[in-house]
Formats: sequence, C-alpha cells, structure tokens
Amino acid sequence: MNGASMIHLEATPPTRAAPKLNGVLETAVYVSDLAAAEKFYGEVLGLEKIFSVPGWQLVFRNGESIVLIFNPDHTERERVVINGGNIPLHGARGAGHLAFRVAKPDLDAWRRRLVESGVTIESEVSWPNGARSVYFRDPAGNSLELATPDMWRSNQPP
Amino acid sequence: MNGASMIHLEATPPTRAAPKLNGVLETAVYVSDLAAAEKFYGEVLGLEKIFSVPGWQLVFRNGESIVLIFNPDHTERERVVINGGNIPLHGARGAGHLAFRVAKPDLDAWRRRLVESGVTIESEVSWPNGARSVYFRDPAGNSLELATPDMWRSNQPP
Repeated sequence: MNGASMIHLEATPPTRAAPKLNGVLETAVYVSDLAAAEKFYGEVLGLEKIFSVPGWQLVFRNGESIVLIFNPDHTERERVVINGGNIPLHGARGAGHLAFRVAKPDLDAWRRRLVESGVTIESEVSWPNGARSVYFRDPAGNSLELATPDMWRSNQPP
Repeated sequence: MNGASMIHLEATPPTRAAPKLNGVLETAVYVSDLAAAEKFYGEVLGLEKIFSVPGWQLVFRNGESIVLIFNPDHTERERVVINGGNIPLHGARGAGHLAFRVAKPDLDAWRRRLVESGVTIESEVSWPNGARSVYFRDPAGNSLELATPDMWRSNQPP
C-alpha cells in the first residue's frame, strides 16, 4: 500500500461526467438592515423586487439572475418548512461579494448614478485583458462590482 | 414639516431609470480549505476550473456564471492591486448560499451522483408552484441548492 492510497477523501466523485448545471440561479448576500437593502438594491441599482418576507428576506430579479438578500439573524437559526421539506439553515457575516455584468458603454452612466445617489465608488480596476471593474459597497458593507462581460470571456485570468 | 420629511436617507437615488445590469456575473462563497473545495466543485459538481490563486481563490465557470471561491483569511485583510487599482477587501464567515439551475429531468441523476460521491442530501423541497429544490452542503458548510428553472419564473413566490 503506498501513501496515496491511505489518504481518506470524504467525497469520492463517480468517474462519469456530472449531469448538467445550467448556471447560477440564486446568489445570496446577507444584511442586517433589510429596509436599507431594499432601497439600495431596488432604487439605486434598479433591480426588480419580486418577493419579500418582512424582516427576513428580499428577492430581486435581474435578467436570468435572482439576488436573494437575507437577514442572517433569522436564516441562521429559524427553520422554515415548505410542504414538509426543510429549507436548511444558512447565514453569513462579513463582507460578501457579487459582480453584475455591465456593458462597457454603460459604465459612465453607472458611475454618475452611484455618485448622484451618494454611493462612494471604492475603487476601479482596469484588467490586463481590457475588462473593467467598478467597486462599491451596499449599505451592509458587501463588496459589489460592476464588471464588463469580457472579464471571464476567455478561460484566462482577466 | 411632517415626520417623513425628517427621515435622513443616506442614498438618494436619481429619479431616472438605472442603466442596465445584465445579470449576475460572479457569485462568491467562502471556504477555509480550498483543496477540499476544488475537489468538490470541480469533481463532484463538475464545474470547469478556469483560474486559481493557490491558497487564495478558485474560479469556476458554469455556463454564463462564474463561481468564485475565496479563502477569507486572505481576502479579508490582504490587499491586491491590479494596474494601480485596488480590489476591495471582502470575506464572509458562516454558511453562504447559492442555487444552481437544474432541469427537472436531471434531478434524479444529481441525487444519485451526490449520494455516490458521499455527499449527504440535507433536504428536498417541493414548492407550491411545482418547482423542486435539492439541498446539500459544500465541504465548508455552505448551503448549496439545485433548483428547477420554474422556481422564480413568474414574479410570484414559488
């Protein structure tokens, strides 16, 4: 028996290919103040609010993407059961991150809108491959990014 | 002056419509063990790894979505500068959440693959609108979900 065969790995993937995953449907961030988040994501970023549970969560749509905003004080500890099935507990603390896809010609309008809305542009990055990022924070301190679509277009670092 | 006019709101959105956001490009989760995450997201979930910074982050592609996996020990405190522009500090602790879109006919194959890979299916939910969710954890405890595409198809709660 060689050393490698003694390594215990908890998850042993089958050798055949995985069934298909068709992209990320839901992206989550965590905030303690849902009212501030609703104003920010809804009015400043202009996302469409499609559902909410007062004090608990907000659901926004942006194209094919769903952005879930949760108050971890609830989701970490209070169980929700739907038709007999548990929604698992979850909840994070600290600054999460998500990036929205923005066409390069729209970046100037976004910079203006953020500044006019009183949102500080924390930084901008010009990537070696020509992609651009504009970074700012939501009211809870999550790090949000507007990223041009060429960011990860090739399988090379931007 | 009535009470409402005295409320101070930090961010005052302009009245015109926001420029366009074209969906979520990057979704992030945080883990302390990147090697375990690489095996899980790459081999069990079958995502395509397109970039990594050893000890720091993994970048996976799934269709139009980019899944970023960060070690918050680095991203919370160590600044990265690209072409003179700062990537803001970020990093979360606790169980984050993301959901992948999975066609209903593929759910059985996913259940089999997870079980054969030693991954516990934590729960399943049958939503009132007919959508289905299968929940499990990544090795760091993030709550992952396979959700059928009808989950948020209408602007009604599922």
